[in-house]
Amino acid sequence: MVRYFEDITPEETHDLGSYTADRDELIEFAQRYDPQLIHVDPEVARETMYGGLIASGWHTAGSCMALLVEGFLSETATLGSFGLEELRWRTPVRPGDTVRAELAVVETTASESRDDRGYVTLDVRAENEQGEEVVYWRSTNIFLTRDGGDEWPTAE
Amino acid sequence: MVRYFEDITPEETHDLGSYTADRDELIEFAQRYDPQLIHVDPEVARETMYGGLIASGWHTAGSCMALLVEGFLSETATLGSFGLEELRWRTPVRPGDTVRAELAVVETTASESRDDRGYVTLDVRAENEQGEEVVYWRSTNIFLTRDGGDEWPTAE
Repeated sequence: MVRYFEDITPEETHDLGSYTADRDELIEFAQRYDPQLIHVDPEVARETMYGGLIASGWHTAGSCMALLVEGFLSETATLGSFGLEELRWRTPVRPGDTVRAELAVVETTASESRDDRGYVTLDVRAENEQGEEVVYWRSTNIFLTRDGGDEWPTAE
Repeated sequence: MVRYFEDITPEETHDLGSYTADRDELIEFAQRYDPQLIHVDPEVARETMYGGLIASGWHTAGSCMALLVEGFLSETATLGSFGLEELRWRTPVRPGDTVRAELAVVETTASESRDDRGYVTLDVRAENEQGEEVVYWRSTNIFLTRDGGDEWPTAE
């Protein structure tokens, strides 16, 4: 059943599950979207302060976004997001790391101008197996209300 | 020649060039990193307020990140980024759109505790062919100083 704006409550949290960073995928992603040497060239990366290849922060964020969609957004009437209030890359992800993500709903705000939608502030945090935070972001997402639900094809 | 922290100046701007959003690539990216229906299913997307498939905002950001690396970061002694102060998705990118990005250096701050590095605040903005802004972000990036340059393998 699809969850609408009214169904999403502040302080709700969700374990979003985990992914394991695959070396070839990290390199392939970075070659296309973030071709810095520390993300694409293991030999060069070894000589830097990082001591070896690290994932692009955008890959880490995207992989956690996939977990957010699968574990939360896909069951909601979401209309997307305005953007991020903040994003922090705290600890690099390295090949083989398993990263677990969790979601916390921070705040829900009904739209003042439209009764078919509302806004939800979400915190996504992810950590590696050592408990080190690898990425955190706060986003504002738009959700249809039950009144607005007939705009939503998956609500049928 | 590699540019160090001291070589990067506030108010410096760079045209980062452009990319054209390829429909298959948008879908493939979203299937892996942001599998919301509006990004992966053209039939469903057509029934929503968007009227058709739109790129994942993470794909738009990643594509602009690639332009930032190719047009600026690859020629600097960058040690990566702490994160983003803000990111805004203003207008969706659709298949076939050509997106042009530009960089503005907002501020440079020497590290107080280490003489081998400094911090640079960067604004990245991108717009479509209609002049609509599609994405904006502000990030804080870390760069080696000339004193710290011997840590940097590409500086040889």
